[in-house]
Amino acid sequence: MRQGSPRFVGETWPVMSDEPAQAVVKEIPPKAADLSAWYTAVCLKAELVSYSPVRGCVVLRPYGFALWEKLQQHLDARFKQTGHENAYFPLFIPANLLQREAEHVEGFAPEVAWVTRGGGEELTEPLAIRPTSEAIIGVMYAKWIQSYRDLPILINQWANVVRWEKATRPFLRTMEFLWQEGHTAHASAEEARKETLTILDLYRDFAENVAGVPVYAGPKSAGERFPGAVETFAIEALMPDGKALQSGTSHDLGQNFAKAYDIKFVDSDSAIKFVHTTSWGVSWRMLGGLIMVHGDDRGLRLPPKMAPLEAVLIPIVRTNDDRAVAACQATAERLAAAGFRVRLDARDEQPGWKYSEWDVRGVPVRIEIGPRDVESGTAVLVRRDRQKGDPEQRRSVALRDVESNLRELLDDVAASLYRDAKRFLDEHTIATSDRAEFFELCRNRAGMVDIAWCNRPECEAHVKAATTATSRVLRPLEGSAVCTACGEPAQVRAYFAQSY
Amino acid sequence: MRQGSPRFVGETWPVMSDEPAQAVVKEIPPKAADLSAWYTAVCLKAELVSYSPVRGCVVLRPYGFALWEKLQQHLDARFKQTGHENAYFPLFIPANLLQREAEHVEGFAPEVAWVTRGGGEELTEPLAIRPTSEAIIGVMYAKWIQSYRDLPILINQWANVVRWEKATRPFLRTMEFLWQEGHTAHASAEEARKETLTILDLYRDFAENVAGVPVYAGPKSAGERFPGAVETFAIEALMPDGKALQSGTSHDLGQNFAKAYDIKFVDSDSAIKFVHTTSWGVSWRMLGGLIMVHGDDRGLRLPPKMAPLEAVLIPIVRTNDDRAVAACQATAERLAAAGFRVRLDARDEQPGWKYSEWDVRGVPVRIEIGPRDVESGTAVLVRRDRQKGDPEQRRSVALRDVESNLRELLDDVAASLYRDAKRFLDEHTIATSDRAEFFELCRNRAGMVDIAWCNRPECEAHVKAATTATSRVLRPLEGSAVCTACGEPAQVRAYFAQSY
Repeated sequence: MRQGSPRFVGETWPVMSDEPAQAVVKEIPPKAADLSAWYTAVCLKAELVSYSPVRGCVVLRPYGFALWEKLQQHLDARFKQTGHENAYFPLFIPANLLQREAEHVEGFAPEVAWVTRGGGEELTEPLAIRPTSEAIIGVMYAKWIQSYRDLPILINQWANVVRWEKATRPFLRTMEFLWQEGHTAHASAEEARKETLTILDLYRDFAENVAGVPVYAGPKSAGERFPGAVETFAIEALMPDGKALQSGTSHDLGQNFAKAYDIKFVDSDSAIKFVHTTSWGVSWRMLGGLIMVHGDDRGLRLPPKMAPLEAVLIPIVRTNDDRAVAACQATAERLAAAGFRVRLDARDEQPGWKYSEWDVRGVPVRIEIGPRDVESGTAVLVRRDRQKGDPEQRRSVALRDVESNLRELLDDVAASLYRDAKRFLDEHTIATSDRAEFFELCRNRAGMVDIAWCNRPECEAHVKAATTATSRVLRPLEGSAVCTACGEPAQVRAYFAQSY
Repeated sequence: MRQGSPRFVGETWPVMSDEPAQAVVKEIPPKAADLSAWYTAVCLKAELVSYSPVRGCVVLRPYGFALWEKLQQHLDARFKQTGHENAYFPLFIPANLLQREAEHVEGFAPEVAWVTRGGGEELTEPLAIRPTSEAIIGVMYAKWIQSYRDLPILINQWANVVRWEKATRPFLRTMEFLWQEGHTAHASAEEARKETLTILDLYRDFAENVAGVPVYAGPKSAGERFPGAVETFAIEALMPDGKALQSGTSHDLGQNFAKAYDIKFVDSDSAIKFVHTTSWGVSWRMLGGLIMVHGDDRGLRLPPKMAPLEAVLIPIVRTNDDRAVAACQATAERLAAAGFRVRLDARDEQPGWKYSEWDVRGVPVRIEIGPRDVESGTAVLVRRDRQKGDPEQRRSVALRDVESNLRELLDDVAASLYRDAKRFLDEHTIATSDRAEFFELCRNRAGMVDIAWCNRPECEAHVKAATTATSRVLRPLEGSAVCTACGEPAQVRAYFAQSY
């Protein structure tokens, strides 16, 4: 992936801010022709990220960070509503602690970055940069939890983590990334499982109703499970190239970590028991998913609830007539007072140049006010989600009703983006019971290939070897059937797809 | 500092959550007797932090993180109001980048943690964990800035940083800590200096009007300057033991970093010039300051604007009578609806046990409702900042007026905490022109010792060697005088103090 890409130090840098907007837009290749080239171009041109001189690491620029802040606000509010609190645990994990849960260390060891020198000295024990925090949090929970009265513990952490990667792809695959990781401890298996599913549904709700990205939610196969988990659940979205993107995971860790880190409590019956733990996370990868799902040849199309700016106001200026600017200014202030996230673009540039610039950035609605609008007391609202020529793209509204019109339009943009994405997912979810067709659909990245499945690791390994596809999530099988992939008795239904 | 303290792995852990509240409070030693022991006890007992198994690193527990979130909210809003945007830069800084600014690397090299292994391989170039981000941000600014139209760049980052430390003291000195670091670039020296001072005043305003901690703000001496800065400004608070705490710094970096990282722009006169940069930061150290300044023998006393909870409601329950609980519940809901941060403590414990628990945590106001209050339609509001026996500690108010009474009381608690701290600072700011007295005051940690000063590094080095005190901030000298410390002509007035 990205072979032949420059090694960053000394590379020729794409100059963005000095280029005219038309040129910038022209540089975004058509999405349908090459999703990968389109994606990178959009991430750079919209100034979401810059490549950095550190291999594998990107810089999240202000517009990209504003998008991340929206994700944080929505998820953080949902976490708090469901009783979770934030905390912060150390970045470093001493080698001996990481090694206590056997499957966990085996899964993560190849990806770990190690600090071996500090304060001018070689360390006697190297420190891992956290690839995830089960280990350090497990040790702390063992200290904090004594009695059933201390349970449940419901903690979330917003943090940076590091997993060694050879390739870099903004949001989707970077060495350092931002995420949130929840870690909870419970008195019973039932309660831990309930927590795992509560979070899975919270993630699904966020993906669908905030990010506008429809997903399949469910358990993963054994082969796709988190190292050390009893059961992993995930939400999986479908990208335009037919590959799935795992966008959030919720793990029921059973008592595996409790035993490895000695997290015990005295229950109400006075018996000493191990707790049951869960962990769950969403990273900035979710942003990569919504960019790919919604974007078009002009750039980003942001779902309104995630958009740093809901609308941008652009005066259609005639020489020596600044009434349009004044009307835009007054309208921007009214909208801001009504709680909308808006910006007036009064820069000394051509309106068309500005249109392109804000189109790239995916602002859901553009509000144009020209001299004629000033006279008639109107404004033109232009939807970013529609294309030129669509009669619904532009509407002229009375300025006195601009708030209600904008509200309605934003809701409609949100619904429309979701509807389009849902249609794509539905149309690219293909059920089959024919073995040859199944393998061909998987090889061709036809989408989510829905089969009756035996749920055996050997079968999944065989499919993967033959097609690179794996099961994404499972669901119950109704009735009985044979496995489409191998002919053994089926146990579940599964969506298979190639994945990021 | 903290000699003989355990090395954490395998240490006996202080069990907090299972101990009765009285015992917990009893364990906080008197503040006046031993500030250091009191401080550590309060940080642990209030469950702000826990020591971690990683030497030098603490865990910020949910209550501590909630305090940090209040700091973030207040500062972040002020940054945004003054035109700054957030972004995120890589954790890692390749060795060659860190080394470009000579003074900078010399200042930070001894404190750096180095990653030398990753993905199972030895790295050809070690990666520093950021001790601060001037280097990596300088490289990016050189890429982003082409023209005067790209200026100013006003970016802030909330991040974790690592500086190798031998000793651990929650908030005040830890290997990894949370902070914000602002990094701006400007077309002119005047604009950069103005930014530096804007932020200095923003920090002063936050410290005094939100954290309730009075500070001296001003430039530092050359010896106390940030490595690579042209001028460093700071806010300095005075702790109860007479030592100063540097609580925020704002650096005018001139063109030093612009030259080291080649950050140039084409100005409006077509000339190619180096930009002028600033950087500034506040860390969780600020929390350590407000804990020490306001706390008392019962634990924390939180300034209301920083308090995660403004009030806690405690029903005075009589057996088989839960009207008090219902009244507390209804009042809590009313207060929450009015925008107050409140919690009902309806646990099955004695009221006195709960009082102590919330006293330790420093909740500014306690609201008690008992059966008699239910009958008379009243509640008792108890101020955390006052001591037992103070006639103003408790007031009975009509329940229908509880919102306005709570608002007024919170404002009064805030004003009162600040007034007490300001009086302490004033009483411990001692001007002297007598050399022997100056050295004795410095040695005795008498507070901020205010002298006419020559502003020579040799003089400061001599004072430091003799007393361990250094200059904290400088201000203009009115008229002429000789240096109290050495007898040479004075250039400035300076506050000298020992410091954390």
